[in-house]
Amino acid sequence: MSVLTPRPSAYPSRVSAEPARLPRTDPVVWGTVDDGPLDEAALARFATSGYLTLDQLIDRDEVAALLREVDRLAADPALAGDERLILEPGSGEVRSVFELHVLSERFAELFAHPAVQAPVRQLLGSDVTIFQSRVNRKPGFRGREFSWHSDFETWHTEDGMPRPRAVSLSLALTENRSDNGSLMIIPGSQRTFVSCVGETPDDHYRESLRNQQYGVPDEESLVALVEAGGIETVTLTPGSGVLFDCNCMHGSNGNITPFGRCNVFVVFNSVDNPLEEPFGGTTPRPRFLAAR
Amino acid sequence: MSVLTPRPSAYPSRVSAEPARLPRTDPVVWGTVDDGPLDEAALARFATSGYLTLDQLIDRDEVAALLREVDRLAADPALAGDERLILEPGSGEVRSVFELHVLSERFAELFAHPAVQAPVRQLLGSDVTIFQSRVNRKPGFRGREFSWHSDFETWHTEDGMPRPRAVSLSLALTENRSDNGSLMIIPGSQRTFVSCVGETPDDHYRESLRNQQYGVPDEESLVALVEAGGIETVTLTPGSGVLFDCNCMHGSNGNITPFGRCNVFVVFNSVDNPLEEPFGGTTPRPRFLAAR
Repeated sequence: MSVLTPRPSAYPSRVSAEPARLPRTDPVVWGTVDDGPLDEAALARFATSGYLTLDQLIDRDEVAALLREVDRLAADPALAGDERLILEPGSGEVRSVFELHVLSERFAELFAHPAVQAPVRQLLGSDVTIFQSRVNRKPGFRGREFSWHSDFETWHTEDGMPRPRAVSLSLALTENRSDNGSLMIIPGSQRTFVSCVGETPDDHYRESLRNQQYGVPDEESLVALVEAGGIETVTLTPGSGVLFDCNCMHGSNGNITPFGRCNVFVVFNSVDNPLEEPFGGTTPRPRFLAAR
Repeated sequence: MSVLTPRPSAYPSRVSAEPARLPRTDPVVWGTVDDGPLDEAALARFATSGYLTLDQLIDRDEVAALLREVDRLAADPALAGDERLILEPGSGEVRSVFELHVLSERFAELFAHPAVQAPVRQLLGSDVTIFQSRVNRKPGFRGREFSWHSDFETWHTEDGMPRPRAVSLSLALTENRSDNGSLMIIPGSQRTFVSCVGETPDDHYRESLRNQQYGVPDEESLVALVEAGGIETVTLTPGSGVLFDCNCMHGSNGNITPFGRCNVFVVFNSVDNPLEEPFGGTTPRPRFLAAR
């Protein structure tokens, strides 16, 4: 393990023995109503809650075509053993496929479509690049929980994303119900940066894709955020999606229902927010996790 | 381990290498509208769905008093090491207290109260006895899931309850939300007995209180039941409760929210349904799990 030298940052994390809640010094909404399709109410909702649902972003046929494309990628012999395919520990089934925008023309077209790009560019007030994309296939009956976390905490510390000027889209290809481990968001949490305790081992990303151990917010901070904003479960019909700010505190419960979930996840970063050296001093993670 | 000799039964389980879905040959509602406070609509709802919520069964003051009583029992030096107290593996905190009706005068009075007893006697069409009672304190942040199961499957196989003529009350002392691991029920599942695969080791109950391994329904049956009836999450305000049939297929997801749950659980069995020898051929479980 290398000796890590964290860099100074307005969003320090994993550098102190004590957690802290720091005010976000950057805007949540960077553009204006003149910049795109979202109206004042939608922009205000995103600024306040940190997320926004987009109903029926794609139609049923496109949903079916994307599900077939996911199956094709998961079964592609050329991708066997590729680190962009994450396998279920027990069964060896493909749980996630990363870098969809590189591996699949169809997904690249989807992510470049104006219906997707225009609201994202408006929220970020600039052109955007894809920072990461993936599809997650969460099984029914034994879907595992995902603890509370801010994506930006990781992307800043481990990937060198300087400011919280990135937006994620989670697009449902199957139903996201209130009972099958859907995304839970703490509304308003995007305005607070929770500085986490601990260090970051170098090259730990392979393990962390399975089991989050670093950048874990403290329970006192989570209680404070929930007391202020509550918790909302984002339910989605197939073809609908949710845009959420990169610093939203979010997570998901496990899932014992028979209803699995298949969601496409793509992160857009502002072109004015290019990645630097990781603020945690670690070696940059590979391109499929953080495109530079 | 003893050699087990299962007894013949209309509800055989853990005796075959293949699962089966058997029709329930007994009624769900045994009484009539003349027998108690529930009206025709409520009785019909219970017959159809297998459960019924009771709003504000007790008031805020009584909720607070019961929570204090739970704390008192959990801290009672006279009960330290008692097998009726189930401890959290890591922290050693008291997670459950069994036989509340024996250990606590206040709980005994609650369970004997007409507001509790009258609808139960009406549903079961007879006087009732307490088969089991307990309080569960489920922590926030790391509440574990509980897999799908029918209580009657266990009570029949391991405790010798002859027929599904028992009703459970789960009474909320803290909020049961849609996102904090609340009870999920498959409506209508009470009309099907899912015969499970496998055997029952003798004296396995200590482990099974922590981790269900026997009497686990097969996934195909669960899918069939959910396709027919869906899944409903039972949300409850403190002081409200839910009555549910002993053969309802139910379970709960894990809970990463900060909201823990504290529920009192009491099972009423018809006096016309006294326990016999366990149908699975095992040694009867102790009184705190199955009062004879």
